[in-house]
Amino acid sequence: MVEPLLVRAARREPVERTPVWFMRQAGRSLPGYREVRRRLDLFEICRRPDVCAEVTLQPVEAHGVDAAVIYSDIMLPCLGMGVGVELVEGVGPVVDRPVRALADVEALRPLEPEATLPFALEAIGLVRKALAPGRAVVGFAGGPFTVAGYLVEGRPSRTFVATKRCMYGAPEVWHALMGTLADAFAGYVAAQVEAGADVIQLFDSWAGVLSVDDYREHVAPYSARILAAVDVPTIHFATGATHLLPELAAAGGDVIGLDWRLPIDRGWALAGLDRGVQGNLDPTLLLGPFDRVEAATQRIVELVGGRPGHIFNLGHGVLPETDPATLGRLRELVHERTESAAAG
Amino acid sequence: MVEPLLVRAARREPVERTPVWFMRQAGRSLPGYREVRRRLDLFEICRRPDVCAEVTLQPVEAHGVDAAVIYSDIMLPCLGMGVGVELVEGVGPVVDRPVRALADVEALRPLEPEATLPFALEAIGLVRKALAPGRAVVGFAGGPFTVAGYLVEGRPSRTFVATKRCMYGAPEVWHALMGTLADAFAGYVAAQVEAGADVIQLFDSWAGVLSVDDYREHVAPYSARILAAVDVPTIHFATGATHLLPELAAAGGDVIGLDWRLPIDRGWALAGLDRGVQGNLDPTLLLGPFDRVEAATQRIVELVGGRPGHIFNLGHGVLPETDPATLGRLRELVHERTESAAAG
Repeated sequence: MVEPLLVRAARREPVERTPVWFMRQAGRSLPGYREVRRRLDLFEICRRPDVCAEVTLQPVEAHGVDAAVIYSDIMLPCLGMGVGVELVEGVGPVVDRPVRALADVEALRPLEPEATLPFALEAIGLVRKALAPGRAVVGFAGGPFTVAGYLVEGRPSRTFVATKRCMYGAPEVWHALMGTLADAFAGYVAAQVEAGADVIQLFDSWAGVLSVDDYREHVAPYSARILAAVDVPTIHFATGATHLLPELAAAGGDVIGLDWRLPIDRGWALAGLDRGVQGNLDPTLLLGPFDRVEAATQRIVELVGGRPGHIFNLGHGVLPETDPATLGRLRELVHERTESAAAG
Repeated sequence: MVEPLLVRAARREPVERTPVWFMRQAGRSLPGYREVRRRLDLFEICRRPDVCAEVTLQPVEAHGVDAAVIYSDIMLPCLGMGVGVELVEGVGPVVDRPVRALADVEALRPLEPEATLPFALEAIGLVRKALAPGRAVVGFAGGPFTVAGYLVEGRPSRTFVATKRCMYGAPEVWHALMGTLADAFAGYVAAQVEAGADVIQLFDSWAGVLSVDDYREHVAPYSARILAAVDVPTIHFATGATHLLPELAAAGGDVIGLDWRLPIDRGWALAGLDRGVQGNLDPTLLLGPFDRVEAATQRIVELVGGRPGHIFNLGHGVLPETDPATLGRLRELVHERTESAAAG
């Protein structure tokens, strides 16, 4: 049986070329996706396994990447827990009743993925079936800090003041909320693996607003619980979190996701050489001239120097303004440069 | 002549106790300030030296801090360059015509602080005159990346996509803009010192969104030009920029400002032990129970361990929701703990 390239790379096995995928590759940069979105909103797409599988597979076809990342949103499981969430265009997730007290946490329903999110699992099965065996299906869950932050703030925040206020002033509420989310997401990622996901990524996008001490005390144990729930390779990612790289690695993840802030070799050293890394091209580079993309890609390839365990990706999601042709060109470039590196 | 405590600490001289001030101490947390703001908006206050001096001095009186930071906004000098800026409540600076082409940069007027911002300089003179000699007047300018970012985006941004697009795709526009801002701000900080400022802080709030390489290429030379324009002690500060601490220090600053993300000893090591540091209590802590504030303050004092060159401050500005009494209590706590540390 052929194992996906991405899975082998995540285990730090020597591979024939560096695997490439792009966070948010199934998104607004693709015309086919934009057409579907004219008819259906994000959660509606998620609820239709055939459409969800289609938009998940589109970018694999279009860009020739090594993985299909399931089209979804980190707030999707919250729907299954009884939370009213709307994804507001240009704003982000807006929660109808923010979590502020213990009663709000107790009102959350335990997540039963098979019962409440069967469509999400079905979509994974369809994608796994349609995809060539050398390509990986990446399932994911939101990091518990980021999701808890949205639930407490009620909407995206730059400073997470209400969230930290909860942590410091009502630690019993905070820990109850995080425990509830950790249990739910642990079950959710396990169900995704059961359904066919080859790799799980935990996206704790905003954990970087926390100090090292706060991350350790208020987040790490919960992330660890989720990452320990599966036996497939895991990728643990946050942005703006160079100060937390050793902490993210300590909480878990076979692969640590790096944004663009540090050169990849320095990020890798902080994550630990006993892990793989994923990243780290600045997605805004793709909006500019390709010669800068090429130079930055070459630099990443050189700094990695053929060390096993690198998954090429952007340092954050594909920006909606990105020309899809640039993504295909970049994928091709990485494959070319890393094949020749292995040969030479 | 008595030299201000803050100035001596910034030069890393041994001091009798650690100086304390708070970024945004002159702000919404003070009832006297809120009263003034019912009549006048921010720029109107800046245009009235007597009122500006009053709101600058209020928190010194109220909290017993060691410095008065001039009430102003980093966008103020842009008014003197002919830019239409409005400070929109709950949003931030909104620029009427974003800078996108070389012609937009050429349309900026050279800043002549004495001619176009006389009120700002007069306010500094009034504050210096009213303040006890042991207390410092802190003048400031916005970091060139942050101000350029607002000018290019037209409003606050989380990702600075348009700004980076300008850097990568139109470097001639970017460098012309940064050169123009650097010249303007160099003149502005020099005029502030002439008017009576004892210390200058460069606030490059959002530089942390840049990679190390981009900061070096696109920002550092301009920050260096501004910081080199004065011979009083300088403080160089950015948030979410732990990956840039060595670069900020290389660009200049007798003191490097640290946000709350790293423990202060680790931040200091990255900034370089040949510099002072300012920071680094998380401002959101002040919204919670005081025992956590006390523990975090004690930890900072212990990690500093009496090393000369520490200025106590928050890791970012005072949040509007902060109880002013907490600020006074915190100032007192730092003075007590560091006096006894020096004695013991």
